[in-house]
Amino acid sequence: MDNFDKLKTYLEEKRFLIEKTLEELFPKERSYGERVISASYYSLSAGGKRLRPILCLMGYELGDKKSEEILPFACGIECIHTYSLIHDDLPCMDNDDLRRGKPSCHKAFDEATAILAGDGLQALAYEWFTHPEVVKKINPKVLLKAINYIAKASGLQGMVGGQMADLLSEGKKGNLKLLRWIHEHKTVALIEASLVSGAILAGIPAKTLKILSRFGKKFGLLFQITDDLLDLIGDEKQMGKPAKSDLKKGKLTYPSLFGLEKTKRLAEKTTQEAIDSLAPLGEKGELLEILTHYLLQRIS
Amino acid sequence: MDNFDKLKTYLEEKRFLIEKTLEELFPKERSYGERVISASYYSLSAGGKRLRPILCLMGYELGDKKSEEILPFACGIECIHTYSLIHDDLPCMDNDDLRRGKPSCHKAFDEATAILAGDGLQALAYEWFTHPEVVKKINPKVLLKAINYIAKASGLQGMVGGQMADLLSEGKKGNLKLLRWIHEHKTVALIEASLVSGAILAGIPAKTLKILSRFGKKFGLLFQITDDLLDLIGDEKQMGKPAKSDLKKGKLTYPSLFGLEKTKRLAEKTTQEAIDSLAPLGEKGELLEILTHYLLQRIS
Repeated sequence: MDNFDKLKTYLEEKRFLIEKTLEELFPKERSYGERVISASYYSLSAGGKRLRPILCLMGYELGDKKSEEILPFACGIECIHTYSLIHDDLPCMDNDDLRRGKPSCHKAFDEATAILAGDGLQALAYEWFTHPEVVKKINPKVLLKAINYIAKASGLQGMVGGQMADLLSEGKKGNLKLLRWIHEHKTVALIEASLVSGAILAGIPAKTLKILSRFGKKFGLLFQITDDLLDLIGDEKQMGKPAKSDLKKGKLTYPSLFGLEKTKRLAEKTTQEAIDSLAPLGEKGELLEILTHYLLQRIS
Repeated sequence: MDNFDKLKTYLEEKRFLIEKTLEELFPKERSYGERVISASYYSLSAGGKRLRPILCLMGYELGDKKSEEILPFACGIECIHTYSLIHDDLPCMDNDDLRRGKPSCHKAFDEATAILAGDGLQALAYEWFTHPEVVKKINPKVLLKAINYIAKASGLQGMVGGQMADLLSEGKKGNLKLLRWIHEHKTVALIEASLVSGAILAGIPAKTLKILSRFGKKFGLLFQITDDLLDLIGDEKQMGKPAKSDLKKGKLTYPSLFGLEKTKRLAEKTTQEAIDSLAPLGEKGELLEILTHYLLQRIS
């Protein structure tokens, strides 16, 4: 079995655990709030790679811990990611009718329901971060620190600020400084925080957290670059959304700024930087290294 | 000085502390996210009674604690309340152009910015709940419990679910069961959780928390009933929004179901029930009792 096969098995196992936990934890009692609860679950259960919660589990396992202990926390991160997708798809934002091959939330339901579903998923994230099962396993001070880290990364000075700048940049002549800022906030911040929060929960020392943070930023950037490239060269079925939609919207992306070839070279360079940043971890960094190669391979 | 004067001085002092803290804690570094940070602050600093954070401080003081210790936490509750107002005002929701006498967030900015401002304020709430100043003062396990309480109260099975049911009930023939459910979720849940979370933070025993929860529910209901009445009989300047807007939208309210007089009698009955529920607290319940009378007096 080669490295990618081992990784794929690992990812598949974790994805299964995440999806099982999402289903188990999701509110069952619905009453008059039925519609918004259904809409939230519609989007939350729509699949996807579950990359962010898996990164959180990987960060936790770096401290020689069993990732089952923090499944509700990891699922909370997926709630934040899903809420951001629901809101980003809205007509007044990116106006995307399709998400993961299905009608996006506001298409399957309506705009008001989609806004509320996103709001409810964000609240659910914090309900799960503080879930009794997690509180039982994790030092409470450390848990508070991890929650604070995620809240910052996903808020006004993180993901939300990045989405704002992304919207404002549409159709305008951009520059590398702005593009980097958008990526660092809109996508990278939550990806980095997913990995680092898991490591915080495992009680990993500050010095190693810094290494993981540096890697997480490189990895997140690589994720965004390959995503931008896939929008241009990927096939619609695999992506579950129309190809070239960034291009049509006049989004500021690496390919729009540098062209295909230069962007591919940048992806390779970023892959190398991400892997180099793992060196101090020694053997422990192996799985993250394979994951990084795997990410790059999406565009080859 | 009579009781109401004493209460007004108290509320004024606490409001000042809340607004000072909001200003101090609010993110200063803005960069390319400037627009959404400005929009959030526009709504957060637009005034209002700051009732929810003050209830949180009152709950905390019931444990003989100094409310200054949890100001960032209380301000987090105001972030949640403000985000809900911003989203409720959106065209696809209640479509309100005015809020507190000023253009609502999507009017002063635009819809996408308003959605993101609300999203960012919800994240900011949890950043402030886990603020180092709070973590320094409060037992971390207790703090996690308070956060969990607020997340539940404001989420899919609380405030968000209530807003969904409220939207769906517009223009339809309602009934008392549905109306109660809407109020209990849309408004009462966060008001009750504001008071109870403060008491949780103070380490108040479970038996007293139950008493406060019961009172909080009655008090929250009274707040909603008087709000519904003010929409009909209040003056626009005082409310900062057009009168009779519930009526025009065909909202399900107590007055729409029972008429003015019966609703006023219900407000009086609810006041009495709220005050009765405080009896086990003895002298400690005095301030909450005066606050309840003060609320009723808004409609007399």
